[in-house]
Amino acid sequence: MMERPTPIVDASASPQAKIRPVPIGAVRLEDGFWAPRQKTLRERTLPTQYKLCEETGRISNFRRASGKEAGDFQGFFFNDSDVYKWVEAVAFSLADGPDDELRGLVEHVVDEIAAAQDKDGYIDTYFTHDRKGDRWTNLQEMHELYCQGHLIQAAVALYRSTGGRKLLDVACRAAENIANIFGHGKHMGTPGHPEIEMALVELYRTTGKRSYLQTAKALLDNRGRGVIGGSQNLIDHKQFRELEDIVGHAVRSLYLNCGATDIYMETGEKALWDALERLWHSLTERRMYVTGGAGARYDGEAFGTDFELPNMMAYAETCAAIANIMWNWRMFLATGETKYIDILELALYNGALSGISLDGEHYFYVNPLANRGDHGRQEWFPCACCPPNMARLLASLQGYMYGISEDDIWVNLYAQSRAKIRLAETDISIEQRTDYPWRGEVEFLIESEAKAEFGLNLRVPSWCEDAEVKLNGQFIDTSIGSNRFITVKHAWSLDKVLLSLHMPAGMIESNPLVGEDLGRIAISRGPLIYCLEQVDNSGFDIWDLVIPADASMTAEWEANLLNGVMVIRGEGLVVDSNWSDKMLYRPLLGSTGRNVRFAAIPYYAWANRDSGSMAIWIRSTPSKKVSPSNV
Amino acid sequence: MMERPTPIVDASASPQAKIRPVPIGAVRLEDGFWAPRQKTLRERTLPTQYKLCEETGRISNFRRASGKEAGDFQGFFFNDSDVYKWVEAVAFSLADGPDDELRGLVEHVVDEIAAAQDKDGYIDTYFTHDRKGDRWTNLQEMHELYCQGHLIQAAVALYRSTGGRKLLDVACRAAENIANIFGHGKHMGTPGHPEIEMALVELYRTTGKRSYLQTAKALLDNRGRGVIGGSQNLIDHKQFRELEDIVGHAVRSLYLNCGATDIYMETGEKALWDALERLWHSLTERRMYVTGGAGARYDGEAFGTDFELPNMMAYAETCAAIANIMWNWRMFLATGETKYIDILELALYNGALSGISLDGEHYFYVNPLANRGDHGRQEWFPCACCPPNMARLLASLQGYMYGISEDDIWVNLYAQSRAKIRLAETDISIEQRTDYPWRGEVEFLIESEAKAEFGLNLRVPSWCEDAEVKLNGQFIDTSIGSNRFITVKHAWSLDKVLLSLHMPAGMIESNPLVGEDLGRIAISRGPLIYCLEQVDNSGFDIWDLVIPADASMTAEWEANLLNGVMVIRGEGLVVDSNWSDKMLYRPLLGSTGRNVRFAAIPYYAWANRDSGSMAIWIRSTPSKKVSPSNV
Repeated sequence: MMERPTPIVDASASPQAKIRPVPIGAVRLEDGFWAPRQKTLRERTLPTQYKLCEETGRISNFRRASGKEAGDFQGFFFNDSDVYKWVEAVAFSLADGPDDELRGLVEHVVDEIAAAQDKDGYIDTYFTHDRKGDRWTNLQEMHELYCQGHLIQAAVALYRSTGGRKLLDVACRAAENIANIFGHGKHMGTPGHPEIEMALVELYRTTGKRSYLQTAKALLDNRGRGVIGGSQNLIDHKQFRELEDIVGHAVRSLYLNCGATDIYMETGEKALWDALERLWHSLTERRMYVTGGAGARYDGEAFGTDFELPNMMAYAETCAAIANIMWNWRMFLATGETKYIDILELALYNGALSGISLDGEHYFYVNPLANRGDHGRQEWFPCACCPPNMARLLASLQGYMYGISEDDIWVNLYAQSRAKIRLAETDISIEQRTDYPWRGEVEFLIESEAKAEFGLNLRVPSWCEDAEVKLNGQFIDTSIGSNRFITVKHAWSLDKVLLSLHMPAGMIESNPLVGEDLGRIAISRGPLIYCLEQVDNSGFDIWDLVIPADASMTAEWEANLLNGVMVIRGEGLVVDSNWSDKMLYRPLLGSTGRNVRFAAIPYYAWANRDSGSMAIWIRSTPSKKVSPSNV
Repeated sequence: MMERPTPIVDASASPQAKIRPVPIGAVRLEDGFWAPRQKTLRERTLPTQYKLCEETGRISNFRRASGKEAGDFQGFFFNDSDVYKWVEAVAFSLADGPDDELRGLVEHVVDEIAAAQDKDGYIDTYFTHDRKGDRWTNLQEMHELYCQGHLIQAAVALYRSTGGRKLLDVACRAAENIANIFGHGKHMGTPGHPEIEMALVELYRTTGKRSYLQTAKALLDNRGRGVIGGSQNLIDHKQFRELEDIVGHAVRSLYLNCGATDIYMETGEKALWDALERLWHSLTERRMYVTGGAGARYDGEAFGTDFELPNMMAYAETCAAIANIMWNWRMFLATGETKYIDILELALYNGALSGISLDGEHYFYVNPLANRGDHGRQEWFPCACCPPNMARLLASLQGYMYGISEDDIWVNLYAQSRAKIRLAETDISIEQRTDYPWRGEVEFLIESEAKAEFGLNLRVPSWCEDAEVKLNGQFIDTSIGSNRFITVKHAWSLDKVLLSLHMPAGMIESNPLVGEDLGRIAISRGPLIYCLEQVDNSGFDIWDLVIPADASMTAEWEANLLNGVMVIRGEGLVVDSNWSDKMLYRPLLGSTGRNVRFAAIPYYAWANRDSGSMAIWIRSTPSKKVSPSNV
């Protein structure tokens, strides 16, 4: 097992962090769900993304910037960021285990990046040659701070996972330049696309240079002062600490919240925390899809108003679900509260994972919750933010599994895996044996090099209503506190813990104010949200289906379907709509339902076969009360 | 009975018009539905609107422009238009019958308007004094052509109904100035807000001056050439004749279509007609509310994409429903096709009429199709386009009832009334005896001064599936053609026709692609769309109601409710949601419904009592098929 200190977010020394992260390299996934995804990532996703970055001019942009190649910049002005995210993904992947080929590729790319940096530290391949004079002149639209933020994140990850300083030095020079230009008493600019904030805090955590943190905070402080026009889409309409509702471009908004949470963990500023909590409630109680997806509107790729959550027209950008994971991880580190991991897990298994195909080479940018068969996956996008973002998520996900505090290990996510965690100067091995997310039983084999007393905190996910725990074969008290972690206090040496999370197929209903979901249900099981795909349901249009509230459903393992999924089947009613294209309204025709069997698959797995209709939210009916006279 | 030649749109001599209008003054409403509305209009609405126009500076803006008063322009820069619409409403009202008080008021207002006109014909009270130099410099935003268009419409209406030329002369001077400035080979500007187009065509019809028509056409031709930035909201993104989908600001879009239809009726240009037909199909098959309301989005007061028709968040501006009536009237005049009157009637009784309170002094700007009790009527608005627009609609509505062609009288709308129609040099009296819209029986007493042979074309509304006709007591063939007019050919002298439109309470369903309406029904009866209001339904939250597809419903007359309405009652199921504010999703709780009685009222009448929830689209359930084993 590798053991490199590569936490996703290193809040180990942050004064306000309640939880310290466990590095990616300390956990090895050995499960049937994520481990094959990571294998596909290394073998297919990362190599094809490299190839596409080359083919689309993203890497040669660096060569053109350094003068190695002639010609003008190609593609979108923010394309550097895709290369940086790819580097970060490779760095995370290398933290899991060596790979000479990937390492060779990334070192080559690092060389190209380093050569493109200016003497003053500035680096952005769009603003080179003739456009040099336009640097920093349009922070609202031109994403220079965004791109250099991604450079910093990539450099920190690569340094942590390989020890290589070359890209870190590039990042530090870039950050130094930024810190010299921006800040209180200097240029009070505001970047149109947040990202630099969390990057600078992470670089501060890595280097100890406080000016990076100060610059991040200055950029946050400046937001809402109208220097980029007071745009709500850019979250410049109010000072951050005054925000009530989560608004604007979903990815920008959530990235900004990541940065603000990072700053909070370093500064402990209460006004910042209060705003973050308001935004979290706004998101999770009024503006988030049941998949953990975020951003309802195509217009501005933005959050809608409260309860504006259309299904077919959902935007729910893959990057926004990933950003939701990133933010909730930071909120968890700050508090140790399980509600943040609940959202993280929801977005991970559903709204984010839907963004990549099973073959690891096709992507969604937009993740609708209903479709008529016209939304397909693509190999790449002109604006390709999502694919490498997905790569860095998948490469790093074992880093989300555990957390530690002084006397406790926190188990956030479940998957067959082995971990080696150092707690209070003792090495502790934890093996998880489980079929999660398909089954709710998780066996922990815990081995401590010296007898160590600590609490093993097992998260009871919000979807689980009934959990029990055995320690070495004996049931223990499993009263779940408000934080929904079951704490197993024990003096550990070689012990076995069995956690059983009751995981039936169930139905979810939504707040009645969500117009499209009123009177409908979504099927779920464990952390997975299900959908109906037409290809699994013949003889009726899935949009015509009604599932009675008292329908019984069964979960059946299908090893050969979609790389292995638990399929949920049940009985519903169908009234065939036979709708004419030429009609918007008509007198109610059908009224008698016919019985049909339906099959639902996990939402993340849709659009991997023939195109056809899909729906998460299915019409339901109450069971009709039978009055005595009818019996 | 008054008999003044005041058609709403005078297409009598338009080469491409199949139907000639019957003037407002030729029809006298004597019914219990509209006649009291017109009484309220004269006694309350028009006087209070005058008072509000004075109090808010709208009329004194004219005095300040002419130098009679000191001080700067007050309010929005387009406020002149409200005064003009009020004048037009009074003009229509005077066409129905004399009213010395209203006539005195309007003559006073005309004097103020006339005094504010510049020597060159320009008139806009915002662009006076210091702002004179800015005239015509910002057609995209400043609405000068829009305001002067309303001046022209008001002047034409006043001239037709009173014979007074003073305002017409003002309008002609304004139009002359506009025609001198704008047009092919001159200034090719494009107004941000259409209106001038239909106004100029109507002035051409009134004066015979062809340059007005040419200017209207030039302004239409110029749209889509990008001179106002190519904005889709302003319908400048494409040439009019290339438009496929109805898009942009709903009122602007529909006003533009009015102008284009008027131009088509004069020119017969096929490309124009083809575009109009495409836009009509786009509207009525994909982008219109079941109320006839138009414009789904708050953002830009605009049409959404296909099937984007949210209920609670519907914009559906009152002016847009009125514009829908105006456009469909013109489309009917051009073709004689009943489908246009179907939309006109739908918008009239529902999406437009909801815009004014029963007391005639409170208005909606926005007309949602569902609400939680926070949407109330207001006495006026800073942007007060809707109230006087409603006034001119109500004042003119008998002008929509009939049409004539060479050998036919077309009965479009039904209401207790007397009409005197001149057809082929013969005076024909038609009395309608009916309780429409509450009952579907309409008795016609027809008297011709000389025996006259013509077809009486009785419209069978799209909501009616079963109609029969008796002529002098004898059933006649009532096969309904594709145009859904039943033609009664007869040599008329003193005859009686009885039309029976079967008018049961029914349920409407929507195209399944309308996300919020899938699995729901709307209740309707005759031309009226119904809604549930919380105040009529106790013991349950109306949003928790489910109405089974086979629920029987009864219509009961309630004379003392809401000025007299037919209430629809039936039995439904309720599962109490008891939703917590803090929750967006939860496991499905309630599943057993309890039986309740519900009461629905016409949508137009909602929000006239205590505030509370309202909904048009109610969840429904198919009747469950009972398989033999269950019996």
